[in-house]
Amino acid sequence: MKKNLVLAQSGGPTSVINASCYGIIKEARKYEIKLYAAKFGIEGILQNNLIDMTNISESDLNLLRYSPSAAFGSCRHKLKDEDFEKIIETFDKYQIGYFVYIGGNDSMDTAHRLSEYIKKIGRDIKVIGVPKTIDNDLVNTHFCPGYGSAAKYIATSVREMSLDADVYAKDIVTIVEVMGRNSGFLAAAGALARDNVVSSPHLIYFPEIPFDENEFLNDVKTTFKRNNGKVFIVASEGLKNKDGNYIYLNEQKADAFGNVQMGGVGHYMRHLVTENITKRVKVVELSIIQRCAAHAASLADNEAAVMVGEAAVKKIMDGVSDIMISIKNTDNGFEAGTVPLSEVANRTKLLPSQWIDSKNRWVTQDAIDYMLPLIQGEVKVPYVNGIPKYIRFI
Amino acid sequence: MKKNLVLAQSGGPTSVINASCYGIIKEARKYEIKLYAAKFGIEGILQNNLIDMTNISESDLNLLRYSPSAAFGSCRHKLKDEDFEKIIETFDKYQIGYFVYIGGNDSMDTAHRLSEYIKKIGRDIKVIGVPKTIDNDLVNTHFCPGYGSAAKYIATSVREMSLDADVYAKDIVTIVEVMGRNSGFLAAAGALARDNVVSSPHLIYFPEIPFDENEFLNDVKTTFKRNNGKVFIVASEGLKNKDGNYIYLNEQKADAFGNVQMGGVGHYMRHLVTENITKRVKVVELSIIQRCAAHAASLADNEAAVMVGEAAVKKIMDGVSDIMISIKNTDNGFEAGTVPLSEVANRTKLLPSQWIDSKNRWVTQDAIDYMLPLIQGEVKVPYVNGIPKYIRFI
Repeated sequence: MKKNLVLAQSGGPTSVINASCYGIIKEARKYEIKLYAAKFGIEGILQNNLIDMTNISESDLNLLRYSPSAAFGSCRHKLKDEDFEKIIETFDKYQIGYFVYIGGNDSMDTAHRLSEYIKKIGRDIKVIGVPKTIDNDLVNTHFCPGYGSAAKYIATSVREMSLDADVYAKDIVTIVEVMGRNSGFLAAAGALARDNVVSSPHLIYFPEIPFDENEFLNDVKTTFKRNNGKVFIVASEGLKNKDGNYIYLNEQKADAFGNVQMGGVGHYMRHLVTENITKRVKVVELSIIQRCAAHAASLADNEAAVMVGEAAVKKIMDGVSDIMISIKNTDNGFEAGTVPLSEVANRTKLLPSQWIDSKNRWVTQDAIDYMLPLIQGEVKVPYVNGIPKYIRFI
Repeated sequence: MKKNLVLAQSGGPTSVINASCYGIIKEARKYEIKLYAAKFGIEGILQNNLIDMTNISESDLNLLRYSPSAAFGSCRHKLKDEDFEKIIETFDKYQIGYFVYIGGNDSMDTAHRLSEYIKKIGRDIKVIGVPKTIDNDLVNTHFCPGYGSAAKYIATSVREMSLDADVYAKDIVTIVEVMGRNSGFLAAAGALARDNVVSSPHLIYFPEIPFDENEFLNDVKTTFKRNNGKVFIVASEGLKNKDGNYIYLNEQKADAFGNVQMGGVGHYMRHLVTENITKRVKVVELSIIQRCAAHAASLADNEAAVMVGEAAVKKIMDGVSDIMISIKNTDNGFEAGTVPLSEVANRTKLLPSQWIDSKNRWVTQDAIDYMLPLIQGEVKVPYVNGIPKYIRFI
């Protein structure tokens, strides 16, 4: 008897996770099995909360490909040892033989631990991971689907905001805070905004380089002088000082607030600039917009997301298990590969140091050459009544 | 001898001011005159800082149509009486007989006062205003170019963020702060995000309705209960209490910060919710992104911006002066009309009270019917290397 397949999504959403689900569903329908999606990631499996997606219509499937966020919900659940038995119970109830888990490095750890447990109890259930992050911090894959679209959105909106910021003949320091707790790939995408028309951003701060207040103020002062009082900065939310502590407008400075989250790097930098250089400072936190702006997603990224989803089903149906689908950069474009889950789990890829021009607070040409292919092409999002039409199943 | 024409842009930029410049330039090139653009609005005229745009290439002109921000720069200069003489000096130097000023209600006041001055000194220089605001707060015009694109961007990104916000099976109150100091048209656009798939936003707060803390907390508590702990709010930056004072996280609550701009409504609402309902609150300020996201501009809005630019040149060449081009809503679509500058200057259009459903913190169908035609169609922004290609001349 053929076994069924379940997919689940995990961690922070992106503009193209659902494109991976599209790829998984499209490929899995070639087999005579039932196809389930877990609601809210592994939590849905723990709670017997699966949806039967076997008969999804073509039109819904097409909407799914271009919809942002996680159409079946997501979670940030760290598996406890006692969870494994419950998972197998759910798998047995739905006759699951194949489990495809879409997520980042935490989720790859979850998938690997589940694989080990399955081996230990001598069961035949295959587990494959599908990469997804906007941070692009998974190792052993050329990039992570989700990053290309976030990078394209950051490049586009930083270019647009650069034009907006310079519109008056007045001083203005603009600080755009982008995501990335450990890796500077998203901040690096700000560099793509510059061209022969738009000369900003001027300075980019990466989490890989310890942040120093005095160096920062020197950078801003120098740029401020050289550029008639106009400075445009892109900063990663994950900036840390030389002791490895995250930079934020701290409790000492924010003590009246108690539980009010002060946000971090952008407000901290504003504080430094207003105290030392100019009161005219604007902070823009790209916040969740950068990970869900599916209307402006990268076609290359969307296609890669579909590809890794399809490849996961092909591999799992071939009996492969305990691996993550990777993306290989070949002369023929991006191709799907495999990497053992144990070689991805809980590891973090940083922006290579040779891609950072730390003297100029910028990136090197190698970084540009790496990013450009990931942001090529525009998706054809379906519009109804002037607004993108999306779908979800929660 | 034919007289020359100068255009200038004023106030906050939009995604389609430059489309009006495109319309002006395209139309003006049919006449054998020189065509100038003032740098940084009226300041460029005061400082003899004009650029000759007569021979702009077709490809640059096309880029101009789709570029955000003000391609020649803008200003927020309130004209002093002694400025008028200086303006006429510049006009004489460049043999200017026609002045087209693109801006909001302050700029229409500037244009009107200049017209009056010209009449007083008995000169023959024509002055016409072209409407532009994202706030949509100009009277005597069906809408203002700039609003349609901002509304489309707000509707799109609120829909995308709504999908993102609900992704975990957990409580979350999301607050999106949009622009609009006096008029709630931008906040109203949040209502367009709802459809049969996306049930949020749940609550919209307009500057036209006095803000009351207790009512707000009741609204949020009720929605929180009814909707499993998920609440999505759109709030105008211009909310005021019953005494007419702007709502913001005030100095008493923010006293440790001194000059740090605490931002306003979104952070204030977060404070209220974290103190009374849940600590899980996310604030997103759409900030300048909503007025410069030209990659997602409304085609209807862009076309209207071109139309008012062209109409301004036609009228001014016919000898008409001291008027603003308006937009009329006809059975044949949007058409250009005229309105005396004195009937636009310094007046503010508010969201009509019958368009606000204040009990449900929502809009009525009339508001939806008004907004929808303004956000129809997508512009074909030229992409180079995966990023929109823009132009400017400052």
